[in-house]
Amino acid sequence: MNYSIIRYILCRVLEFQAMFLALPCLAAIFYGEKEGLAYAAVLLACLIVGVAGKLKKPKSNVFYAREGFVAVSLSWIVLSATGALPLFLTGEFPTYTDALFETISGLTTTGASILSDVEALSQCNLMWRSFTHWIGGMGVLVLILAVLPLAGGYNMHLMRAESPGPTVGKLVPRVRHTARILYKIYIVMTIVQIVLLLVSGMSPFDAMTLSFGTAGTGGFGVLNSSIGSYSIVSQAIITVFMILFGVNFSVYYLISARKPKQAVMHEEMRYYLGIILVAILLITINIKDGFESLLEAFHHAAFQVASIITTTGYSTADFNVWPEFSKFILVILMFVGACAGSTGGGIKVSRVVIMLKLVKNELSHLIHPKRVRQIHFEQHVVGKDVLRSISVFFIAYTLVYGLSVLLISLDNLDFTTNFTAVAATLNNIGPGLNQVGPMSNFSVYSQPAKYVLMFDMLAGRLELFPLLLLFTPATWRRS
Amino acid sequence: MNYSIIRYILCRVLEFQAMFLALPCLAAIFYGEKEGLAYAAVLLACLIVGVAGKLKKPKSNVFYAREGFVAVSLSWIVLSATGALPLFLTGEFPTYTDALFETISGLTTTGASILSDVEALSQCNLMWRSFTHWIGGMGVLVLILAVLPLAGGYNMHLMRAESPGPTVGKLVPRVRHTARILYKIYIVMTIVQIVLLLVSGMSPFDAMTLSFGTAGTGGFGVLNSSIGSYSIVSQAIITVFMILFGVNFSVYYLISARKPKQAVMHEEMRYYLGIILVAILLITINIKDGFESLLEAFHHAAFQVASIITTTGYSTADFNVWPEFSKFILVILMFVGACAGSTGGGIKVSRVVIMLKLVKNELSHLIHPKRVRQIHFEQHVVGKDVLRSISVFFIAYTLVYGLSVLLISLDNLDFTTNFTAVAATLNNIGPGLNQVGPMSNFSVYSQPAKYVLMFDMLAGRLELFPLLLLFTPATWRRS
Repeated sequence: MNYSIIRYILCRVLEFQAMFLALPCLAAIFYGEKEGLAYAAVLLACLIVGVAGKLKKPKSNVFYAREGFVAVSLSWIVLSATGALPLFLTGEFPTYTDALFETISGLTTTGASILSDVEALSQCNLMWRSFTHWIGGMGVLVLILAVLPLAGGYNMHLMRAESPGPTVGKLVPRVRHTARILYKIYIVMTIVQIVLLLVSGMSPFDAMTLSFGTAGTGGFGVLNSSIGSYSIVSQAIITVFMILFGVNFSVYYLISARKPKQAVMHEEMRYYLGIILVAILLITINIKDGFESLLEAFHHAAFQVASIITTTGYSTADFNVWPEFSKFILVILMFVGACAGSTGGGIKVSRVVIMLKLVKNELSHLIHPKRVRQIHFEQHVVGKDVLRSISVFFIAYTLVYGLSVLLISLDNLDFTTNFTAVAATLNNIGPGLNQVGPMSNFSVYSQPAKYVLMFDMLAGRLELFPLLLLFTPATWRRS
Repeated sequence: MNYSIIRYILCRVLEFQAMFLALPCLAAIFYGEKEGLAYAAVLLACLIVGVAGKLKKPKSNVFYAREGFVAVSLSWIVLSATGALPLFLTGEFPTYTDALFETISGLTTTGASILSDVEALSQCNLMWRSFTHWIGGMGVLVLILAVLPLAGGYNMHLMRAESPGPTVGKLVPRVRHTARILYKIYIVMTIVQIVLLLVSGMSPFDAMTLSFGTAGTGGFGVLNSSIGSYSIVSQAIITVFMILFGVNFSVYYLISARKPKQAVMHEEMRYYLGIILVAILLITINIKDGFESLLEAFHHAAFQVASIITTTGYSTADFNVWPEFSKFILVILMFVGACAGSTGGGIKVSRVVIMLKLVKNELSHLIHPKRVRQIHFEQHVVGKDVLRSISVFFIAYTLVYGLSVLLISLDNLDFTTNFTAVAATLNNIGPGLNQVGPMSNFSVYSQPAKYVLMFDMLAGRLELFPLLLLFTPATWRRS
């Protein structure tokens, strides 16, 4: 393990954190809130430590996959720990643990809150909460890669460790250019959404914060009713943008590169849209008796489906009171998640589709044992390494899942609450069912259980292995 | 597909079914019950159809894996459909669907009942219910293989399709001898348990039926309180025998072949016993306040753990009212299941252990991408084919699981009930939680939901693929 380069990267991350904290500072100045002082103080501290810590250049540039995973995991922990400080210092969160839970929930784009009354928060805290979604959505290290001329061949290791999906495709040969293209698409789409929400009659503050939450597929709202009290048009805009931010960003790259045919043919996107369509239809039929018109049922079904499959977590209706069939469709979508290479969480559509193809292949293998068939995805043969890593990911996912439910069940809440609390955090969604349903929050859990759920949020966002490696002794050995 | 050989095997199965039905006939004669006429009638019908149907020899002896899977699946369906007839004809089951549910539950060694009052059943029905456990535990085709001189090389295909576990090891070079050894062990152990239960003061009828249920890891009791009202000694005997019947039978073969060292070193057995020990200790500590003494808590923890991990499903206590932590440990054990090559269900300890080793291997692969490590189990390298089939099994398992919960949630029962109802049937356990808890039964579900759960019981017993192949069009094509 090359410790000095990890230190160097973490200091870079602190510098960027200082830059991020400027936004809530500006909000505090704009709204004349003294809570801004907490942000200014932490900003300054991050800047000083970051600049001072990187004065000493790393001893060696040795950088392998292992360093990539550790750098990414620790970066996210540092961002969370420092990002929670201002929330705690403003006194609006009862404990540092709660502030940390809220920050990790923000950065990992989970959107699970421990607050019952978000409207009591100061504007700068609300802005910061939502902005953490935007930061975490595309990833901090991807941003650093896009902006800084990092030397050496370690760009790809960082990119791979932070980006979601079974394989990390470079859009263009150079990692740095890929990172830039991703952030350009991300920024443009966010601005378009802000403008459209403003046009639909939303206030600038709400349009900004909610767009940050949509873009990162986060889910923190600024009203206690989440999205329920905005106009139907605003809700519809958010529905569409949630779905858009759950699409694999290489589709947008193909569009920008004037390859519309390839974009339309994108296999993962087609499955993703197909699943959304089927889920909306089934739920609309199932819940229609609870609404005044079929259109209204469709509207709420579409919003909730888009919110859950993209792992955003906004809500316009309390789906906890919907029929079990609709609720379980949403639970399935929690696990499926969005496309790889999007800002969404979950297992990812591409993994699910490839796993289904594996089962289909096994059945035909049993019928014709001598016939060898390969699995195709996105017009390519899926390599054995990718197949193995997908299977192992799924196994590790189930393992972390089971252990998490076991640990939090020590709090003795009911099974549905525990099961969906882990589903909501490990898949970075936000709300679950029962006591962690869309109209409730995570304050029901004890401090130890909250740490388990924090682990799950980070593990979910970084797709397990970077975080699991932190607990593997071999990671820390000097080689 | 060689249809004629499938017909031939199914007729053989009917002959065996006639033989099995002799036992409840004898019970009816012994207890002077007129319900015995139903059994006699079905016995005769099975015998006539079986003998007549196999007069015409099969046209071809072509027999591949595909024929093996289909023969086994259809055999189990035929056994279930005919086995349900006498239950229905006695008039003690409200519908044929309910009788079929009970029979499939018996044969697959699930032990889930739709009856709230089993004590109202006639003795011959009780005997048949329990005896189906014993038949299904080791498998009908394994029995046919042991008894009949079947020609051709298809023995292994049948054995593989019916026997649980990631690989099917022949104990001795010839399949037929292996099948005989398995049944010898099975019979001897069942007799020993009957004798011990008699010595502990149990009535001969109860000792026999409960031993059938233990040996097959089934779970049908003959009293409404399951095992709760027997003496502590009887309960302890059942605890020990449940654990024994969940051990991989190759361990007993090694003991009988005077290889005690190899038997003790059996890796799957060691993990299995380790898991049981840890689970008992954790639950004992967790539930001790609800019992008068630590020993009593230990006794009930041990019984319930043994019952659930071996997927038997007997109960001495209503674990539905235990703390969530204990309940979730039991839920985990439901999935882990017993050893491969035992009569128990679930995912199987060997699969779980190999999957854990896969995750460990992946972590070390990420740290040292160039170092290739193989996975060892039972002192052998696990081949790539086995690893793939385990991963795919797990994926298919999750898929069937999710679809089943989705379908039965149309009945609008709560999530915990639905989730554990599928856990209890797909893993062939019996009781779940909430409305299908140990003191409740499956009559709460509608007829369509019952068919889904019947499918799950069969799919669980035959480890998915034989049953899934029935729904694959390619299976039925003539080649």
